This record gives sequence, C-alpha cells and structure tokens, in this order.
Amino acid sequence: MSKVLVFGHQNPDTDTIGSAIALDYLLNELSHESEAVALGKPNDETAYALDYFRLDVPRVIETAADEVSEVVLVDHNEAQQSVSDIEEVKVKAVVDHHRIANFKTSDPLYYRAEPLGCTATILLKLFKEHEVTVPSDIAGILLSAIVSDTLLLKSPTCTPEDVRAAEELAEIAGVSLDEYGLNMLKAGADISEKTAKEILNDDAKTFDMGSETVRIGQVNVVDTSDVMLRKEDILEEMREETREHDYGLYVLLVTDILESNSVAIVDGPGYRQFEIAFSKPLQLNTVDLEGVVSRKKQVVPPLNDVFSKR
Amino acid sequence: MSKVLVFGHQNPDTDTIGSAIALDYLLNELSHESEAVALGKPNDETAYALDYFRLDVPRVIETAADEVSEVVLVDHNEAQQSVSDIEEVKVKAVVDHHRIANFKTSDPLYYRAEPLGCTATILLKLFKEHEVTVPSDIAGILLSAIVSDTLLLKSPTCTPEDVRAAEELAEIAGVSLDEYGLNMLKAGADISEKTAKEILNDDAKTFDMGSETVRIGQVNVVDTSDVMLRKEDILEEMREETREHDYGLYVLLVTDILESNSVAIVDGPGYRQFEIAFSKPLQLNTVDLEGVVSRKKQVVPPLNDVFSKR
Repeated sequence: MSKVLVFGHQNPDTDTIGSAIALDYLLNELSHESEAVALGKPNDETAYALDYFRLDVPRVIETAADEVSEVVLVDHNEAQQSVSDIEEVKVKAVVDHHRIANFKTSDPLYYRAEPLGCTATILLKLFKEHEVTVPSDIAGILLSAIVSDTLLLKSPTCTPEDVRAAEELAEIAGVSLDEYGLNMLKAGADISEKTAKEILNDDAKTFDMGSETVRIGQVNVVDTSDVMLRKEDILEEMREETREHDYGLYVLLVTDILESNSVAIVDGPGYRQFEIAFSKPLQLNTVDLEGVVSRKKQVVPPLNDVFSKR
Repeated sequence: MSKVLVFGHQNPDTDTIGSAIALDYLLNELSHESEAVALGKPNDETAYALDYFRLDVPRVIETAADEVSEVVLVDHNEAQQSVSDIEEVKVKAVVDHHRIANFKTSDPLYYRAEPLGCTATILLKLFKEHEVTVPSDIAGILLSAIVSDTLLLKSPTCTPEDVRAAEELAEIAGVSLDEYGLNMLKAGADISEKTAKEILNDDAKTFDMGSETVRIGQVNVVDTSDVMLRKEDILEEMREETREHDYGLYVLLVTDILESNSVAIVDGPGYRQFEIAFSKPLQLNTVDLEGVVSRKKQVVPPLNDVFSKR
C-alpha cells in the first residue's frame, strides 16, 4: 500500500481530528505509510485538546489527488462533506458512525461503521482487535473526541460502549473525565471573539435531502443568549449564504452544554418543512428544542423524512 | 431490537446463503431475534453444501416490509441486487465484501465490509470478536462459502485471511478442504439439466455503470465446451432479456474451475465497451479471458471504468 492520507470532514471537530490522528498512528503501527491531515484548522475546543495532550496540529489540505492516489476517511463518508477532489482518489477505507449517503466506490474497500456516539469509540475497538497499545496522548485525544461528540456522555447518541470507552481512555490518559471534559467543552464554547460567519460555519455540514440542499450548523455555548443577542447578524449571514449556495434550508443549532437543550435559528425557503418535522412553529426564526443536542440523531432524520416525502 | 430478517443477494450463491445462516446464528447467540431467509432457491452447489452439513434450506421471501421493519444484509449492498422493497425497510446492519454503490440510509448503522475473498471470512472474525464458538455445521457452510467465492482459494480475490479462515473452518467442520471443496464445486458445475435462461441467470447480477445497466452472469464448469455448444441458445436468451430490461451490455462468464480461466459470451449495444475494457476483440460474441475467474475483481472494475468515462 502506497502512502495514504487519513482525514475527517470539512469544518473539522474534535472527533474528526482525533480519529484521524489515532487511525494514522494505528496504520503506522501496522506498517502502513500514512499521514493524518485535516480539511481545515482545528476549532477552539480541538485546539485545547491537542495542546493539552501535546499533539501536533494536522496539516491542512485543500485537495488530495495531487499528493496521493488513495485516502482513508474517518468520521464521514458523504462526498459533499469530504475533500474537494474526493472523486479523483480511491477511498481505501472508512471508519465512521454516520448514515451512509452520497458514497460509492468502484472497488471493494474496508468499511467500518457502527451506530455509536463517536468514531473514536470504534477506533479504540480497532486498536484492541489489532492488539496495538493505545499511548496516553492518543488516549487523550480519543477521549476528547468522545466528550465532544456526546457532550460529556449526555447526548442521546451516547451508547454504553461510548461510556465504557471514555472511562477506559481517561484512565490511560491520566485525567479526570468530568473535570477535563468540562474544561475542554468550555474552551470551545466561547463565541465572544467569533464573527456571525464563524458561528454559523465552524461546525456546519451540508446534507442532500430529497431534492434540496440543507445546511445545518451547530454551536456549543454555556448560555444561549450569547448567540441570541446576535441573531440579526446571524440571519443576515444565513441569507447571504443561502443565496450563494441555493440552500433549501439553513439551520443553526445553539446548544447549551450545561442544560443539554438547544435553540434553533432557522431560515430559508424550506422553513415550513422544519416546522412540520418538529411539529413546532417558528417564532421570529427561532424555536426551543428541548432535550435536543444531537444534529445527527435528533435533527437530520426528521428533516430528511419531511424533505424526502415532498 | 425487534425481529430482523437476514439475507444476501438475489440469485443466491453459497456465500450469500451461508453468511446469512451464520450471521443469523450469531445474532441469536447475542440475544437478537432474527431469521435467515433467501431471495431465491439455493443453486446446486449450495444445495450440496446445505445437505452435506444437514442445514435447513432458508425460506424464500419476495418482500420484507410485510414481515419486518428492519433487515440485515449480507454479501451485498446495492439496492438492485437486494429484496424488491428494500426502500421500505430500515437496513440495520450490513456485512459485505463488495464495492459500495446505490446504497444509502437515513440513520447510522452497523456496516462491516472488508476487501476479502468472501463474506464468510468476515463472519468468522465476527464470531471471534464476540467470543461465540462456531459450531461444526456453521463452520461447514462458512467453509463452503469461501471455497465457492474463491474457487478453492485460487481466485485473485482470495487473500491470506481467506486461506487461514478456510483451513480453520475445515478443521472445525471435520472435512478435508481440498476433497470436500472440489466435490462441492463439481456439484455446482453440472449444467446438462439447465436451460439457457438458467445458465444465464442462476448467478447473474445487475450493475449500474455510468448511465448504463450491465448484466453479468457467471457459470462454473469443468469443461467450457459444455456451455459453448449451446452458445446460440444463450445469445438468443441474452437478446430477449436485453430488449426486455434495456441492458447496455450482457456478459456471461463461463469459468473453468479446474484451469482457472474463463470464456466470456458478450452481447448488447455496449459490446465495444467490453472490447475496450479488455483490449481484446470479440470473435462471434466470445473471447477467451485467461486467468479471469473473478467477476468482482477482474470484470466489474474495468467495465465500470470504461462506462463511467463515456
């Protein structure tokens, strides 16, 4: 196997960066030549975790085909969330915990997906299956990924396997799960220095639903009013991006990491589909979504159902 | 988890039937309610293997949604190779060794694919990962699947993992790999009682390539002239099916299981694409393909490349 690049999705989060670093390490231990890279700079939360465990920030790439012929994807599979020239390289392997859509290959590949809270939990299983010891810095970044994706094990996406993995990794990494976890989440929840565009896009993903393109961002905060006070700026930016990319719907989930609730800011021609999906009317483009913290499990499926039935 | 149906592809072969039976057994051991079913009757080779290891012939289903809301796929993922109403059920899990295409879900799922010679080899790994003992009859049908898919370990799709798995399974099943394997392959290679339609369709799969639909059948024989003497009947049947289903290309691989070579019978509007893919001219609709025994690894990729570039 020639050198492969290992990377996660655009607008990288802690699971995407952490899983790429860990899988790169595992591949190297198994005598494959690989490099963990990223499709963007780490966000504040990920930067905190990388710094804490003294790991290098992965190199950012714009394209892959100019460097390698084969790639390995973590934490995503949908082409529109991947590197811009994904069609020009061969996907050798995927490790992921999302739905499968907009993904195809012409050859057989290694594909490992499980409906768990975090890709990092699958990575820990792969280390064990291949009998490779997890070093403490890798354990630390995998733990950070689980904390991030499950909001400290409180998201409905969190499974007993994620909880067991987080506890085991915290021990290897030598940190207190709760204390380290909350500090890391808080490091990512400060939006005071961010522009409206950054708040929208730092953790946004694009989904094809029915015949529409739906953009869904998510921002973690310790007080949702920090974002709500800037709603007009955010709506203006949403409208600009919607015009530019012809989105059928734009949603920003503002998630309170202490209370495990979200407020959604919603705009775009498909706003009625949002109201139908959640059986709740929007009020001035916003709606409280009690108990909703997971885009993947609590927002994408109901929206996809409504858009697919149109 | 409510009851799930576990099944492989249409025109079932020994890997599809054997992997469904084994995964059903594993799921039951792990306290899930499941039933192995099939999308057609077993072929002669599979019937030999089931009979040898005294396993029940799986019930044949036409549709799934009238019985269950969730299904588990083995040995395939492409919708056009699956149950007719696959869009109406939720795919809970997939265990496969093929390319991924024409497959999407709205929710995260368990997906386990590896580029190995046989789904059964992955099944053996799953038994080990879940620490479930493989009983001798299940070992026998998994061994049969590996022998079938790799033509007794001689196909280029066969990996060292398949070889190790076959040896281990033969020991558990208490049979001689070579002797049992050859007897099983020969049981499936007698075409004297088959119609042209059966020869074409008993192990045929449909592929979307570029904008065309390509039909590729494969028949194992101990002497290719058994089939070649019936070429005109076969071509007539090919043309009828091509008209009915608007195939862009129809290929029958006639594979000599002793010599590990194939002769292809080719017809349909895209026959030039076949010639380009293999850099060989057809002569009276046939061409020798030396060393070619694997549809998946040696026929689908070059054809797909040519059709995708049109």
